[in-house]
Amino acid sequence: LGFRGFLASAAVSEVAFFVYRDLRDRGFYLSPAREDRDGKTVDFVVYPRGKGPWDDEVAYRVRAVGERDGVPAATLSGLAGTTEGTGVLAVVDEESELSYFAVAAPTLTGSSYDDVPAVTGELVTDRVLVPDPPETLHGRAFYGQRLDGTVQLSLVEAASLAARGRLGLAGRADAERALVDRGREVEGKRFDRRLQVYDALRTAGIVPKTGYKFGADFRTYADVESVADLGHSERLVRVLPADHTFAPRDIALDVRLAHGVRKEMTVALVDGGIEWLAVTRLTP
Amino acid sequence: LGFRGFLASAAVSEVAFFVYRDLRDRGFYLSPAREDRDGKTVDFVVYPRGKGPWDDEVAYRVRAVGERDGVPAATLSGLAGTTEGTGVLAVVDEESELSYFAVAAPTLTGSSYDDVPAVTGELVTDRVLVPDPPETLHGRAFYGQRLDGTVQLSLVEAASLAARGRLGLAGRADAERALVDRGREVEGKRFDRRLQVYDALRTAGIVPKTGYKFGADFRTYADVESVADLGHSERLVRVLPADHTFAPRDIALDVRLAHGVRKEMTVALVDGGIEWLAVTRLTP
Repeated sequence: LGFRGFLASAAVSEVAFFVYRDLRDRGFYLSPAREDRDGKTVDFVVYPRGKGPWDDEVAYRVRAVGERDGVPAATLSGLAGTTEGTGVLAVVDEESELSYFAVAAPTLTGSSYDDVPAVTGELVTDRVLVPDPPETLHGRAFYGQRLDGTVQLSLVEAASLAARGRLGLAGRADAERALVDRGREVEGKRFDRRLQVYDALRTAGIVPKTGYKFGADFRTYADVESVADLGHSERLVRVLPADHTFAPRDIALDVRLAHGVRKEMTVALVDGGIEWLAVTRLTP
Repeated sequence: LGFRGFLASAAVSEVAFFVYRDLRDRGFYLSPAREDRDGKTVDFVVYPRGKGPWDDEVAYRVRAVGERDGVPAATLSGLAGTTEGTGVLAVVDEESELSYFAVAAPTLTGSSYDDVPAVTGELVTDRVLVPDPPETLHGRAFYGQRLDGTVQLSLVEAASLAARGRLGLAGRADAERALVDRGREVEGKRFDRRLQVYDALRTAGIVPKTGYKFGADFRTYADVESVADLGHSERLVRVLPADHTFAPRDIALDVRLAHGVRKEMTVALVDGGIEWLAVTRLTP
């Protein structure tokens, strides 16, 4: 079926046709998904090279979208929830080129040191200053930054410590309340989402630090024993509300940047709980 | 002046203080900007290392912002318009770390081949198919992509060619009108901005192709003689309305990605005319 023949038939979307053609050209056998069996998320079921539907083995389950289509977070969730074969988002760009992203549900565990004594700090605009800090606060548990013999905590670090009873604020009875209020003042609801994700990562033994220089919410270190012996951060985390709709171009940007710095792009979808998605480039 | 001393005085913003301190620590002498002399954009005038205000030489003119502050496009324009010294945006992130971006007005010129005969195509959803295309259309002038013996043009390529009388559409008297209408249907006003920038680049002898895989509007090639001998694309172009307000995090993301693929991040601010800004990482 050539492109012009396809145009005449118009049985499937143009975007789906481009993806179908590209995967066939790459040597795959693929069949249209059946909603009853494959759910609503998937357009194609792709079999391993040299195999077909009769072999009872699936390589990919593929959703095809155009560069200009919005991709609801639920679509990525659906792809990550694929039990057999990898869930794949295929994007057709405005020049008809294809790119593929594998979407999976990552396991987030770490073994970082997190045993710090309770400290007292001062809230200054949108950070907290801890004078005469214990060595472990920054040196081992990697909270904040050292500056002039103090440790400066970000609001999200401070709010998380306060909630666990490890940070008080000079002159304020309810440190956690004061920090969350300040966070909401400067970031709105985004602060609550980021705090929830920060807490979940710390609970999992992972150290989140700001991802600002990578355009992300956090970069994360799974196994911090001491800052003097810090390894490479493994993930970039983008925190979003669970009803977020992605522009494919933004996914391309995030995934490409993460790949370039050897980290895994991770999305935290927040809605009461947190759903984690790992998105990586794929060459089928 | 230590951080706690500064807190007591509160004569300048916390963010400005962090930048001041960092630049002093890097060995620079700097003085507060004077609005009458330096305009509203700049917070500090920074002199070359080992020099000062008495030497009549300026290294940087710096605007200091926090990670959470919006940066109006006009601020970047002001920095790019700095006549003496480099215009610099300094960003203090939530963990009090600094990053610096140089902002300049780039010169955009190229020498690409652009001599193509008039062709006729078919508009199919959001692309145009040119059957039996002349070799020069893609092979030398680098319009579209080859597919199945046709050349497929993106809407913006097609609209630009139609406006210059080099593309007609089968069965439509006014090809340009039809293409612009379709573009607006699928992209809204963004299509008009992108078309204006596309035209300006082609007029300058530069070939714009989609920047989708880099999360940008275009990647550009300055000197295309033939696609078989294509060089490296030099720029990533993000097209924005002139009244856009940037999040520093988005600037960090774009500039970091561009740097990683050895291209220069370029912003096209559209408002009747086009203002070009080149943004790069800087270590003072």
